[in-house]
Amino acid sequence: MSVERWVISIISPDEEHRRTVERAISEIKGLVERKAEELGYDIEVRLVGSVAKDTYLPEPDIDLFMMFPPEVPWKELEKEGLEIGREVLNGEEKYAEHPYVHGEHRGFRVDLVPCYRLRDASELKSSVDRTPFHTDFVRARLKDDQKDQVRLLKRFMKGVGVYGAEARTEGFSGYLVELLIMRYGDFRSVIEAATEWEAGESLRLTEGGKVGFDDPLIFYDPVDPNRNVASALSRDSFALFIQACKEYLEREDERFFFPRERMAFDIDTIRGEIEERGTSIMIVKFPRPGITDDNLYPQVRKTMQGLISLLRNNDFEVLDSAYHVDEGVSFVFELESEALPRCRRHQGPPVWISHSERFLEKWRGGALRSPFIENGRWVVMAERECHRATDLVTEKVDSTSMGSELRGMECGALSTSESLVQGNESILSSLMDKRFNWEV
Amino acid sequence: MSVERWVISIISPDEEHRRTVERAISEIKGLVERKAEELGYDIEVRLVGSVAKDTYLPEPDIDLFMMFPPEVPWKELEKEGLEIGREVLNGEEKYAEHPYVHGEHRGFRVDLVPCYRLRDASELKSSVDRTPFHTDFVRARLKDDQKDQVRLLKRFMKGVGVYGAEARTEGFSGYLVELLIMRYGDFRSVIEAATEWEAGESLRLTEGGKVGFDDPLIFYDPVDPNRNVASALSRDSFALFIQACKEYLEREDERFFFPRERMAFDIDTIRGEIEERGTSIMIVKFPRPGITDDNLYPQVRKTMQGLISLLRNNDFEVLDSAYHVDEGVSFVFELESEALPRCRRHQGPPVWISHSERFLEKWRGGALRSPFIENGRWVVMAERECHRATDLVTEKVDSTSMGSELRGMECGALSTSESLVQGNESILSSLMDKRFNWEV
Repeated sequence: MSVERWVISIISPDEEHRRTVERAISEIKGLVERKAEELGYDIEVRLVGSVAKDTYLPEPDIDLFMMFPPEVPWKELEKEGLEIGREVLNGEEKYAEHPYVHGEHRGFRVDLVPCYRLRDASELKSSVDRTPFHTDFVRARLKDDQKDQVRLLKRFMKGVGVYGAEARTEGFSGYLVELLIMRYGDFRSVIEAATEWEAGESLRLTEGGKVGFDDPLIFYDPVDPNRNVASALSRDSFALFIQACKEYLEREDERFFFPRERMAFDIDTIRGEIEERGTSIMIVKFPRPGITDDNLYPQVRKTMQGLISLLRNNDFEVLDSAYHVDEGVSFVFELESEALPRCRRHQGPPVWISHSERFLEKWRGGALRSPFIENGRWVVMAERECHRATDLVTEKVDSTSMGSELRGMECGALSTSESLVQGNESILSSLMDKRFNWEV
Repeated sequence: MSVERWVISIISPDEEHRRTVERAISEIKGLVERKAEELGYDIEVRLVGSVAKDTYLPEPDIDLFMMFPPEVPWKELEKEGLEIGREVLNGEEKYAEHPYVHGEHRGFRVDLVPCYRLRDASELKSSVDRTPFHTDFVRARLKDDQKDQVRLLKRFMKGVGVYGAEARTEGFSGYLVELLIMRYGDFRSVIEAATEWEAGESLRLTEGGKVGFDDPLIFYDPVDPNRNVASALSRDSFALFIQACKEYLEREDERFFFPRERMAFDIDTIRGEIEERGTSIMIVKFPRPGITDDNLYPQVRKTMQGLISLLRNNDFEVLDSAYHVDEGVSFVFELESEALPRCRRHQGPPVWISHSERFLEKWRGGALRSPFIENGRWVVMAERECHRATDLVTEKVDSTSMGSELRGMECGALSTSESLVQGNESILSSLMDKRFNWEV
C-alpha cells in the first residue's frame, strides 16, 4: 500500500465516526433553536467549515453559525447570540474579528458564531461573514473523490508545519487547501506544482482577480476576487512547503504526514553545541502577556525584529535567532560575540567642513582618545554605552520597536558565560534544532 | 618678539652662511665645467631650486642642472652626464623620473642633474625639465620681503609634518609654498586663507588652467597650466595643514614650527593602552624591499589597503590601522577581535529559485549545521577557513591587492595574545600615538 493510501485510511472518517459527528451537530442545533425561540428570535443555525464540507481531519472543530435576521440591531445580536452560545455550550466567549463562544459537546470542540443572514457575498463585512459562502462554494464544486485528497494535503501540511492560517503558524487555511485541490485536481498534482512555484505565484479558479498583492502566494477568492485567500501565509511557510514538496517527491515517507515528536535537546547536547559553535548565546525573557495567540504572535515577531535591530545598530553581529513561547516569551540570539571592546570607531566630517568644529568640540575630552584624521576626515574612538549585549538589551529594550503588550515589561537577559542552560533547554532547542519536522 | 619673528631669525641665512653656500656652488660649477670641457661638451651649469630662489632653509640641498645642447643624443647625455657627476661628487647615482647623481660637497647635500637646454616650457618632458622654468618664474616674481615668508611657511609645514612632495610625506613642495606666498602675500595670509579651504580648492596666479583635477588642492602651474602643482598632496596632508592653521591662529606657539621629538611609548604605556582599549592589536611584518622611499611608500599604502580589505572581507572589524617603516615594513591593526567563531552566517537564494538546489547540494554536509530557511531564503552556518586574523593574513596575504615589491615576501603576524610588545614599541606607537606634532 502506498504511503498516501495508508494515510488516507487513517484520516478518513468511517461510518461510525460520521454518525457520532452528525449526532453531536443535530443536538447542538436543537438546543440553539429552542433557546432562540424562547428569546423570541427566528434564527437559522447553519453548519459551516470543514465538517460541512466533509473535508475534516479526525477530531474536527464543529463550526455553527447562528444567523439572525438583518432587522435585529448589531448590539442586540451580539448580546443575545453570545447568551445563547454560553448557555448551550457552557463555554467561553472569544473574540477574533468577531465575537463567538467556544466550548465542547460530546468531546468535540464547538464554535458558535452569531451573525447576520446575508443574501450574497457582496454584503460581506468580515472574514467570518464570508465563511458560509466559502462553505457553499466548496460544497457545490468539490468533487466527492477530491475530499480525501483535501484531507491528505491538510495532513501533509500539518506534518510539515504549515497548516493553519492563525498567527502562530502563518500557514495554509483549510479553505486554501480545498481551492488548491480544485485548482490542480488532486494531492500529487498540488505537490508537483508547488515545486515550481515562485514568490508572487498567482492562482485563480474563476475569471477576475486583478488586484495586486505583495504576498508570496496569491489565490484569488472565487467568492470575493478582491481578496487573497493566502494572505496569512508567510514567506517562511511558503518556502517550507515548497521544500517539503521537493523532498517528498524524492522520498515518499510517512514522516511528512506524521513526524516524530521533537524533544528538547538535553543539557549535554546543548553544552556540546555551545562549545563547538564558539559563538555567544543570549536569552531574553519576558513574562507572557494575557492575550490570545492570534494577538500575541505578531507582537512576538515584531519584538524579535526590534531586538535584532537594537543589537545590530550597536555593532553586535547576530548570526541566528529564534523565539519560544510557553509560560513566558523568550528570544534566543546567537551572536558572534556577546561582549565588544569598550570603544567603537565613529567617523566624523572632513576636516575642511565648517561644522567639523562642532564635531571636535563634542568629542575632545568625551572620546576615549583624541580625534585623529583619516583620509581627510575626523575619526574618534567613542566609548560604548553598553559593551555587553545583555546590558544593552535590558537597558535599551524600550528604545526599540516592539509589540505593544510586551513594551514596558520587565525583561531579563542572560548569556552563555552565565549558567544559561539548566531549565532553558526548550528555549535553546528552538535555536539549535533547525531540523525540518520530517527530519526529526 | 613674536613667534614668527623669532622663527625667521633662526631660519634666515646670515651673510656668513650665504658666503659658505656660494663658495660651495662656485667650486662645484668650476669642477663640472672643467670636466665637461675635457670630455668635449659645451654645457651650461645652472643653479636651480630653493638656493637659486633664496628661499632655502638651513642645511639646504644644492641643485645644479648640467644642461647639454639639444643635438647630443639622450643615451650619450645620460652616460656622460652621470660620469661627470660621479667624478665631481664622488657620489651615488639615483633615479627618480630622471637619472642624477647625489653626493656631498663641503657638508652640503648636492644633486647634479644632466638635462637638455630648453628654450621654453612647451618643450617640457618631465618634471625635472620644468625645474629651471619654476626657478626663473619665482626669481622674477617673488618679492624680496616675501622670501622669509616662504621660509616661515616651509618651517611651519615641516613642523606640522606636511612639507615635501615625496611619496613618504605626500605634502607641499617648495615650489607650491612659494606660489602660495605669491598668491596670498605673506605667511599669515596663507594660514588664514587655509582655514577656509575645502577639498577641491582651486587656486591660480595667472589666467588659464581649465583642466579639472580630482585632487584636494589644485594650484595651476603658471609655467604649465595643464599641471596641478599640488598633485602630490594627499587628503590627509591637506586636512592636517588646515587643522594646524586653525589651531595656530588660536594659539601661536613655537611647537608648530619646532615640535618636540616624538618618542616611542614605553612598554608599560603600551600594555596599559592594550588593557584599556579591550581591542585586539595585530602586527604584520615584511622585510623591507631594496627600493627607494619614493617607490616604497606607495606600495606600503597599497598593501595597507589590501590587508584592510582582506580583513574586512573576512568579517574582522578593523577599528584603526597604521604602518611603520624601518629596517622592515610593519603594519599594525586594531581589531574588534582577533578571533572569530568557527562559523560564519552565509545567506543563500530563496527556496523557490531553481538554482537553490545547487546551493543545497553544495552546503549539505559541507556546512557546520544543516541549511535552514529564514524569511524564505536558505541560510547556512559555514565553517571559516581562518578564524584567527593572524592565520588569515599569513595564509591569504597573496590573494589581496598589494605593492608588487612586497608581494610574495614572507610575512609574519602576531597578535595581542602573544608576547607582542617587547621590541615593537615604535611600531605600536605609530598606531597608538595619534597626537599631532604640535601636541607632542
